[in-house]
Amino acid sequence: MIPERFPPPTQLDKPRDHCGIFGVFGHPQASQITYLGLHALQHRGQEGSGIVTCTGPAGAKPRFHSHKGFGLVNDIFKPESLFTDVLKGDSAIGHNRYSTAGASDNAANIQPLMVNYRGGNVAVSHNGNLTNFRGIRDTLQEKGTIFQTTSDTEIILHLIAQSREKDQIRQIIEALNRVEGAFSLTILTDTMLVAARDPRGVRPLAVGRLGDAFLVASETCAFDIVGAEYICDVNPGELLVFDRETLKSGVAKSFSLSPSGVVPRHCIFEYIYFSRPDSTIFNDSVDKVRRRLGKALAREHPTIPDNDDEKVVVINVPDSSNTATLGFVSESLKLGYKSKYEIGLIRSHYVGRTFILPAQGVRQSKVRTKFNTVRGVLKDKIVVIVDDSIVRGTTSKQLVKLIRDAGAREIHFRVTSPPVRYPCHYGMDFPDPGELIANVCDGDIEKIRRELGVDSLGYLSLGQLEESVPRDRGQDYCTACFSGDYPTSIEENGSKNERDG
Amino acid sequence: MIPERFPPPTQLDKPRDHCGIFGVFGHPQASQITYLGLHALQHRGQEGSGIVTCTGPAGAKPRFHSHKGFGLVNDIFKPESLFTDVLKGDSAIGHNRYSTAGASDNAANIQPLMVNYRGGNVAVSHNGNLTNFRGIRDTLQEKGTIFQTTSDTEIILHLIAQSREKDQIRQIIEALNRVEGAFSLTILTDTMLVAARDPRGVRPLAVGRLGDAFLVASETCAFDIVGAEYICDVNPGELLVFDRETLKSGVAKSFSLSPSGVVPRHCIFEYIYFSRPDSTIFNDSVDKVRRRLGKALAREHPTIPDNDDEKVVVINVPDSSNTATLGFVSESLKLGYKSKYEIGLIRSHYVGRTFILPAQGVRQSKVRTKFNTVRGVLKDKIVVIVDDSIVRGTTSKQLVKLIRDAGAREIHFRVTSPPVRYPCHYGMDFPDPGELIANVCDGDIEKIRRELGVDSLGYLSLGQLEESVPRDRGQDYCTACFSGDYPTSIEENGSKNERDG
Amino acid sequence: MIPERFPPPTQLDKPRDHCGIFGVFGHPQASQITYLGLHALQHRGQEGSGIVTCTGPAGAKPRFHSHKGFGLVNDIFKPESLFTDVLKGDSAIGHNRYSTAGASDNAANIQPLMVNYRGGNVAVSHNGNLTNFRGIRDTLQEKGTIFQTTSDTEIILHLIAQSREKDQIRQIIEALNRVEGAFSLTILTDTMLVAARDPRGVRPLAVGRLGDAFLVASETCAFDIVGAEYICDVNPGELLVFDRETLKSGVAKSFSLSPSGVVPRHCIFEYIYFSRPDSTIFNDSVDKVRRRLGKALAREHPTIPDNDDEKVVVINVPDSSNTATLGFVSESLKLGYKSKYEIGLIRSHYVGRTFILPAQGVRQSKVRTKFNTVRGVLKDKIVVIVDDSIVRGTTSKQLVKLIRDAGAREIHFRVTSPPVRYPCHYGMDFPDPGELIANVCDGDIEKIRRELGVDSLGYLSLGQLEESVPRDRGQDYCTACFSGDYPTSIEENGSKNERDG
Amino acid sequence: MIPERFPPPTQLDKPRDHCGIFGVFGHPQASQITYLGLHALQHRGQEGSGIVTCTGPAGAKPRFHSHKGFGLVNDIFKPESLFTDVLKGDSAIGHNRYSTAGASDNAANIQPLMVNYRGGNVAVSHNGNLTNFRGIRDTLQEKGTIFQTTSDTEIILHLIAQSREKDQIRQIIEALNRVEGAFSLTILTDTMLVAARDPRGVRPLAVGRLGDAFLVASETCAFDIVGAEYICDVNPGELLVFDRETLKSGVAKSFSLSPSGVVPRHCIFEYIYFSRPDSTIFNDSVDKVRRRLGKALAREHPTIPDNDDEKVVVINVPDSSNTATLGFVSESLKLGYKSKYEIGLIRSHYVGRTFILPAQGVRQSKVRTKFNTVRGVLKDKIVVIVDDSIVRGTTSKQLVKLIRDAGAREIHFRVTSPPVRYPCHYGMDFPDPGELIANVCDGDIEKIRRELGVDSLGYLSLGQLEESVPRDRGQDYCTACFSGDYPTSIEENGSKNERDG
Repeated sequence: MIPERFPPPTQLDKPRDHCGIFGVFGHPQASQITYLGLHALQHRGQEGSGIVTCTGPAGAKPRFHSHKGFGLVNDIFKPESLFTDVLKGDSAIGHNRYSTAGASDNAANIQPLMVNYRGGNVAVSHNGNLTNFRGIRDTLQEKGTIFQTTSDTEIILHLIAQSREKDQIRQIIEALNRVEGAFSLTILTDTMLVAARDPRGVRPLAVGRLGDAFLVASETCAFDIVGAEYICDVNPGELLVFDRETLKSGVAKSFSLSPSGVVPRHCIFEYIYFSRPDSTIFNDSVDKVRRRLGKALAREHPTIPDNDDEKVVVINVPDSSNTATLGFVSESLKLGYKSKYEIGLIRSHYVGRTFILPAQGVRQSKVRTKFNTVRGVLKDKIVVIVDDSIVRGTTSKQLVKLIRDAGAREIHFRVTSPPVRYPCHYGMDFPDPGELIANVCDGDIEKIRRELGVDSLGYLSLGQLEESVPRDRGQDYCTACFSGDYPTSIEENGSKNERDG
Repeated sequence: MIPERFPPPTQLDKPRDHCGIFGVFGHPQASQITYLGLHALQHRGQEGSGIVTCTGPAGAKPRFHSHKGFGLVNDIFKPESLFTDVLKGDSAIGHNRYSTAGASDNAANIQPLMVNYRGGNVAVSHNGNLTNFRGIRDTLQEKGTIFQTTSDTEIILHLIAQSREKDQIRQIIEALNRVEGAFSLTILTDTMLVAARDPRGVRPLAVGRLGDAFLVASETCAFDIVGAEYICDVNPGELLVFDRETLKSGVAKSFSLSPSGVVPRHCIFEYIYFSRPDSTIFNDSVDKVRRRLGKALAREHPTIPDNDDEKVVVINVPDSSNTATLGFVSESLKLGYKSKYEIGLIRSHYVGRTFILPAQGVRQSKVRTKFNTVRGVLKDKIVVIVDDSIVRGTTSKQLVKLIRDAGAREIHFRVTSPPVRYPCHYGMDFPDPGELIANVCDGDIEKIRRELGVDSLGYLSLGQLEESVPRDRGQDYCTACFSGDYPTSIEENGSKNERDG
Repeated sequence: MIPERFPPPTQLDKPRDHCGIFGVFGHPQASQITYLGLHALQHRGQEGSGIVTCTGPAGAKPRFHSHKGFGLVNDIFKPESLFTDVLKGDSAIGHNRYSTAGASDNAANIQPLMVNYRGGNVAVSHNGNLTNFRGIRDTLQEKGTIFQTTSDTEIILHLIAQSREKDQIRQIIEALNRVEGAFSLTILTDTMLVAARDPRGVRPLAVGRLGDAFLVASETCAFDIVGAEYICDVNPGELLVFDRETLKSGVAKSFSLSPSGVVPRHCIFEYIYFSRPDSTIFNDSVDKVRRRLGKALAREHPTIPDNDDEKVVVINVPDSSNTATLGFVSESLKLGYKSKYEIGLIRSHYVGRTFILPAQGVRQSKVRTKFNTVRGVLKDKIVVIVDDSIVRGTTSKQLVKLIRDAGAREIHFRVTSPPVRYPCHYGMDFPDPGELIANVCDGDIEKIRRELGVDSLGYLSLGQLEESVPRDRGQDYCTACFSGDYPTSIEENGSKNERDG
Repeated sequence: MIPERFPPPTQLDKPRDHCGIFGVFGHPQASQITYLGLHALQHRGQEGSGIVTCTGPAGAKPRFHSHKGFGLVNDIFKPESLFTDVLKGDSAIGHNRYSTAGASDNAANIQPLMVNYRGGNVAVSHNGNLTNFRGIRDTLQEKGTIFQTTSDTEIILHLIAQSREKDQIRQIIEALNRVEGAFSLTILTDTMLVAARDPRGVRPLAVGRLGDAFLVASETCAFDIVGAEYICDVNPGELLVFDRETLKSGVAKSFSLSPSGVVPRHCIFEYIYFSRPDSTIFNDSVDKVRRRLGKALAREHPTIPDNDDEKVVVINVPDSSNTATLGFVSESLKLGYKSKYEIGLIRSHYVGRTFILPAQGVRQSKVRTKFNTVRGVLKDKIVVIVDDSIVRGTTSKQLVKLIRDAGAREIHFRVTSPPVRYPCHYGMDFPDPGELIANVCDGDIEKIRRELGVDSLGYLSLGQLEESVPRDRGQDYCTACFSGDYPTSIEENGSKNERDG
């Protein structure tokens, strides 16, 4: 049923784990809650999903149950897996995997990974990317370790199992102290749910509460869908343990990972594009930040003054720039521009998010099936289009063509982020640098403008971007995809060997 | 594979055919174009789809090919059906069926219906509802006719076959002159594509052009997706014939159905809710009309003046009231209200349109999986929510609860249509009158307000609605679901016998 | 889900209905019994199956339920269709369809056909072939009748509906009196189960009893699987009605079809190959008749006398010639030949019956996956292989090659039927005459022998065949595929237009 | 898609690997050949199958490809996996897994297991059972090894990876020298195919040749299906290496496992029941041995002399006792009994082998769907039924009832093996001893006879069994399931902890 391809040792997957993770401890409907949580996190990964549950604690030996598959959450989990014994137990973790080449990919890589070692069963869901995984993998292989997946996540399991610590929590801490890069994790064992986040807190991870049960999720929208309450974030460098005692006391045990005291470097792209606007991440509302980006953009690259005010319309790219466009328009008005917000593009409800589709060819043909123009809104108008980011430029170019075809007189492109020029080593699946339009055009904005075929082009500057994101708690951000400034060291072949052929 | 249930003669389906139809004549990729057209019309019917193609004209006898199924267009049509000989031919018709009880329904009812009679093969796609079909069905059965479906559309095929006319076009005209009610049709025969619309033009039907080929579709968005040009509507009471000659001359033959000269009565609900905003129907842009509805509503039921202007936010219900809300906000500003447009509800990309889901129970549980609130936008605010219509009230009540839970201080509900109180006999699948909240509350707006749990409630009046829709070409509208004023006579048991048990 | 192709009017399917039919009246597990019955009759048709049930009789209006699909019975019917309400009711009919081109075929043709007419619901399962169906179809089409399938069975439904008789039984009788050829039928209506057989009784049809309920099946093995008792055959030209009264009285009503008094002409090939050896058909045990064929063959074409008796082995082709081979061996011993029965060919349990697979290409490649030789049994032996029939010769040639490869010294081929030379117009799906090896070789046995590559070849003569089948009740047989002597007249284009392209 | 359950460490699967294995080296159609080989070996395991191929050797780094699933070979492997790049490469191994609890089982356990370690990729297919695997697993876990499956086969991979040998062949030998019990293996690496067999040669393993390519299979019937030639067996305790050099020289490298010089102890049950009669295993034809068992049984427990010779019929249980029954009948005749061989039971072609179905409940209900009686053969007869073995007795009891219902006057049961009383620790999936009828009846034959409801019962004695199997090359047999005499030591909890709950 499941075709798998196993790469040779030197052609490992670029771990593509911009993913969504979830965990629940202490609820009789653990698998159903996880299912809904994964559904709310579907935008973080659409290639495949999995849920692992643990039966316990009453009397009998704990037992792990798992169900995984390729596709969307709603296609993988059906009543026969959710409302039967297939996924029984009162604790669970889940994972949504980022879209890659699909059917030809290795089914064994679908998370949560689940194994058995001397300490019992253990399963893990990972969002992020480990930057020193090739080195650790080589070392482990030299010692005689076998690998069943091509995922960086598997080394965490081996490090836990090979730890000489007696206590399972200590084993996990030791393992996590060995790995570098970005990791937000939910780990399920026979007796507990562990949530952990790398010292820089690159990826988000939040804790929620539903009655007595505890929930952990990449974004808070996964709590809202089940009516749970958002409590706090897992702190950067923190490891939280939820066990039977926690259920009684209402308090999770907290441990620190090393190095301690490093400045958090949150992924700034989570605010720009990846997270849902109705989520709170890094302790702040995505909606609020995204609105600020729109306002800052309006100040840097305002709309075009025109004698005939009626001729200027500002449109969003639904739904990714909806909120930022509102900020852009309100700030423009404040600045004295009379440009009007309009809905000029209609998004089909029946396709996924373009950014996430795997192949260049497919993406192109999907634009027409995803967007349509409202001619009455665009015809003879000076159109200002606000988008969140430009990566390859393929989608942008086609949108511009669609708008042009609808009769727009001029098109002015505004972007709420700087040009994307560098690979992400922390889990965002950008294409090869050679496919980034900002690189192809050597960072020359005029060249990009011509390439896109627009009348003007304005990117939010890195400075303005950095000023627009929250900093009131001393946090900092990873802006490496714009600046090339990586908060950790990167393995030699990290930037060369991006793709699983 | 396909379970079917066959009802007894007196328990016929309420024909639920608020559907989308498509046709193409003279294009080598007829099936692929139809597939994309149906994808663009997916919002008109999500229960099932089908495509019938005709091989021709070169030499060999024409042959019909068909592929149908339950579910979404993208699930039914795959490369193996679209890029192979399964659906070969240069003419095709397609159909999206409205969502009903799903798997338990009769597969034979999925359109296009395809049969063979003395005149050759003929297939038909129908959007609308025939109000005299029970009478005709009884008459036909008395004469010895057998029925293989429970669809009203089947009588059209029998009437064609039983016509004593020699000429196939005359047979079709004779058949259509016998039926009453609403019908927009695409009919495929061995030699031609026929498009026809009932004399009142209740449902939309447009003609497009792609190179030399002709296209017919319920809405023009189905032309945009393939880059085709919108030419004109099929006129109310018109029957258009596209054949080999048409391809050469570029001119379709036009015939008139009787009675001629009746005033068109377009379904006003197509403008309010059903059609896509990027479509042109009844010769006008849906977007433009919908905006006018929002403006009229703002004049009738303005937002709440408040001392603290910052406290009032106007939100849309994505995506069905997006455009109308913009109209509402701009008119409110013009009227001196300072209320701000905000995005307070986020719609998941991974579920279909609520209105279309079949069962009450499912709908309720789906609201949470479909919408989430943006707390920062709603907390402590006076929220004005603009929606297109209230039918059962179930979804509205739950949205109100979600918004209340997000901390809204007050909630004011505004609707761009009057209360829905009467069944539709022309193809809109409203629930039984006893389930309509406006009926349950005897049309008492204060009672509905209390039922919804909002601080104020304002419906657009029927008068204002009728003044807001285009009338410059002498057209009129069917407003029966609001007024009970049906443009045609309705069969006795039409309003009693709504459901297929 | 289901691709369908609709042929032009002059390229109708050669109706391929060598099928299995079943019916049950008055049992609460009607659908499950039908499922098991169809499973026992699987050898009669492997392309697709269907079950139609009728809910009744308690109070409410009767309602028909249907489930159909392509493939084997076990693949189509699952617990969710058999143990739920999908197929509820205490009466049911079922049908197994003969294998044809499979997925590309018209799903609408899968039986039972189910329609609604002025007399209520009616469904029909048919085994056989109507020889005057093109004429009747033309007449019906001229009168304005539409056809939804390409099956000859559909005309029976139209004839019933168009009958001017008031009484439903009379309608059915009138319809059946109009059709010619071979038909064994089960017909389900809102109130009764009807079983009928053409005046010549070409195909078998038996009546069984399970408690108070009545069963009807093509072969008695379908009774054994549910522990039911075989009562009698439906007589040639008889129509039996099972209704509520029958359940009380234990007596079915019997009617006669016309013409009455014709001599039964049973299909002799049912005894030779098609029926299961554990069945009773035409009032006699298939096993017993098949053994007699083997004995007669031994007398006509005995095994080879050899000095070294040990060298001669007689082998069967499992499982179709098992019983006949035993007869052949025992008679050979009686005649003084010392040849030994051996198992020289092993049949895989994981493929279907070769004769039934649709395409020439597939058949050839399947022989190796179906049979293997036992070398120790065949090496250096004089092998006498007994088979039931040779149609195309393809399988036989490959078997001969396999046996030769296993080291056989000589191969002597013996067949328990005469050469097949003429098409069957009564439901057996023989290939085009041009593909029959006996035709290709002009009936020259020596030529066929060379073609097969065997040392000697012996067919049972038509005379001996006719003497070996039961005649004690005055019955006669159709031997048209061997003799060209058809018991009814055949439509002009019957023999030309065999195939649905 | 694939539900998995992970047991706690102390509830490990009873490794159920009475399986079929295959391997091919040096053929461009490696995956297709493996597919056909697995199809021929389907009787050895019907729960699931898998194929792993290796791309090479031209230039590029070798790459492994895998496709696995639950179900029959024909359901798992389709043209899209066999005739595409999904399984490309010129070397491959495959595996059929024995039927267990099916869908609820752990998908990760389906073989071949495929991993990556410092020596490259390695995949393994295993038939047999390792008797010291729990001890080794515990030791490995103590050292920090994680387990992703519950299969004993996984320890072989860990032992290879953890070997300190530099040379891969030495690593494999070291690993295999550590494990005890029964193993026939095919191992695929980046550069070679390895075939190995435990020193006692409990399970069969044969080498074949197809052109220049080498094949390895559990039984020779897997060579016949592709027209390959059987060369020799892999000797007990031998490890054969096929690599690029082998293709040139035509000679595989042979290595010895320790301990060397132990007496082979072939599984005697392979001859009695498990292998196909057309296979050669342990250097001898299964057909020939099985015939001898029938003859020996006839001498020990002859048929009943009867005055009326015509009344005694000997029947087989198709197809497992076909050959043995022929031996029984011919020997009976030689001994002067006139009993006649008859076909009294008909086996449906549409179900699998009963012995292999997982649950007791299912088996019982399947007997009726699997066998039917030929009444004419059995009625009023003294029936001698020859079967290969009696395990639970459930099937036997029901067969006896079927035969009794068909009118048999007396039933005499004959079995070509002794009573089964002990668990198999070498890969045969017998039920718990408490479910074996011979144990339930304390080995009291009279009690078993009464339990089965037969008139007499005769088992082949262990002595006669041992005399009937080939011994001309000094080989011996494992008869532990009859005698309790195990050729190796068995782990403490081996016999207690049979089942995966």
